[in-house]
Amino acid sequence: MRLIKSVGSMKFWSDETRTRGRTVAFVPTMGFLHEGHLSLVRRARKEADAVVMSIFVNPLQFGPREDFTAYPRDIRRDITLARAEGCDVLFAPSKKQMYPGAFLTRVNVERMDSVLCGGFRPGHFEGVCTVVLKLVNIVRPHVLVLGQKDAQQAVILGRMLRDLNTGVRLIVCPTVRDRDGLAMSSRNSYLSPQERERALAIPRSLFIARKLVLAGERRVGPILAQIKTALSRGGISDVDYVAILDSKELAPIESVRGEVLIAIAARVGTTRLIDNIKLRV
Amino acid sequence: MRLIKSVGSMKFWSDETRTRGRTVAFVPTMGFLHEGHLSLVRRARKEADAVVMSIFVNPLQFGPREDFTAYPRDIRRDITLARAEGCDVLFAPSKKQMYPGAFLTRVNVERMDSVLCGGFRPGHFEGVCTVVLKLVNIVRPHVLVLGQKDAQQAVILGRMLRDLNTGVRLIVCPTVRDRDGLAMSSRNSYLSPQERERALAIPRSLFIARKLVLAGERRVGPILAQIKTALSRGGISDVDYVAILDSKELAPIESVRGEVLIAIAARVGTTRLIDNIKLRV
Repeated sequence: MRLIKSVGSMKFWSDETRTRGRTVAFVPTMGFLHEGHLSLVRRARKEADAVVMSIFVNPLQFGPREDFTAYPRDIRRDITLARAEGCDVLFAPSKKQMYPGAFLTRVNVERMDSVLCGGFRPGHFEGVCTVVLKLVNIVRPHVLVLGQKDAQQAVILGRMLRDLNTGVRLIVCPTVRDRDGLAMSSRNSYLSPQERERALAIPRSLFIARKLVLAGERRVGPILAQIKTALSRGGISDVDYVAILDSKELAPIESVRGEVLIAIAARVGTTRLIDNIKLRV
Repeated sequence: MRLIKSVGSMKFWSDETRTRGRTVAFVPTMGFLHEGHLSLVRRARKEADAVVMSIFVNPLQFGPREDFTAYPRDIRRDITLARAEGCDVLFAPSKKQMYPGAFLTRVNVERMDSVLCGGFRPGHFEGVCTVVLKLVNIVRPHVLVLGQKDAQQAVILGRMLRDLNTGVRLIVCPTVRDRDGLAMSSRNSYLSPQERERALAIPRSLFIARKLVLAGERRVGPILAQIKTALSRGGISDVDYVAILDSKELAPIESVRGEVLIAIAARVGTTRLIDNIKLRV
């Protein structure tokens, strides 16, 4: 595995790899890798001749009162894990490599970036879109592999890639959960054992919602009510949102039909967690 | 010359041309071609193995009260001119090809898009950036060739291409003027003979400013005052702006130093005209 830190070297590798007719799959991450990230690499290996993973904690997608500085980092462990999983390149640029001098360009996906997390993290998806478009232009992948855990991010980036005619194919892989049901996240490392216990109410409430839908419930109102009850019973009171939306357009719906997204964002202690399930009925 | 109307065929041509190791220069236009556009094609031919010109009147960059519907079009004449000038491909997509279904993505270059024309045409440069990034992703050029006539557009697009790591090199060609000094523009076709006579005050006032600077004047205030006097004497009262700025950052300056841009936007009758000169002292 090659560790590449400069944008120029990464571009050189990409150009050369494409010229030799090899296809590239790309897994962008913020590092502090867990099984969720590694599942994306495994899928990427099936989709293309070469796999590039990036590790970049992108300042542009953190708000002024968010956890950019505190965000967990362990590049040495990440290198070991990426190598073991068979990445061909680990691209780990510095902030200065990615944003040299005055950086003025911004990429948005309107409407979709103001619902769900967008309402609570203004500018977040703009930061995500901008950095991912930069990374895509540097890595020039044929395929981008993302996780369903960040459902809104996946929908927004898919739209951006399509709207801007990038020709990059998006693959979204299932959320990987720990044995207790908690969706894997680098931010889980912030949780105390007691907090982690409370956090389990999040997946539990989603599984209750799934059960309701499978049992025939189609009205959004009662499903949301049951989720909120389950969260509150589990000791989670600081809820940013619980929402049931059309999974492709992230538009509000009144009854469960076609493919829907049930998504939650809540705070456990000071840690903000998100989780979701996608259902097709 | 090939006339291509679909995004898919254009992408196919670009991929194939790149695969064969040929370089591509790209001239994006809104059509109704004049000598200004053709000078860009001639420059493009010197810079790459193949030249693509696009013709697309982009609705996204017109305001609700602007001249999108009235904008002059003559695709048959354009095809003849592009062929005679040696374009390899004329890419003329429909609105539906460029914006199929719900189109949500927007690209901005902050700060630079709110000065000069940006202050009078909200959303204009967002529309320009978005469509040019789409076109660049479809045509995949090595070089983009633009005219100095649209000075702010060239600076903003240059920044966008760099910020987003597109790897596309920008070349800006000098403004082409008619014999009477008026900068060539498709919108000149709106002018009556009397209006055209009055419009000449715009280049005349810029040439007066250049003379002042060459004579040693460095204070922005007196130069602006002389430009405004010349415009008003020529019968131009409806002035959007007269500005002297740093030519790279489009930031205000107090005295003429390094490379500066002197730019004017004014209305003659109902026609909005822009013009500028770049000076290095």
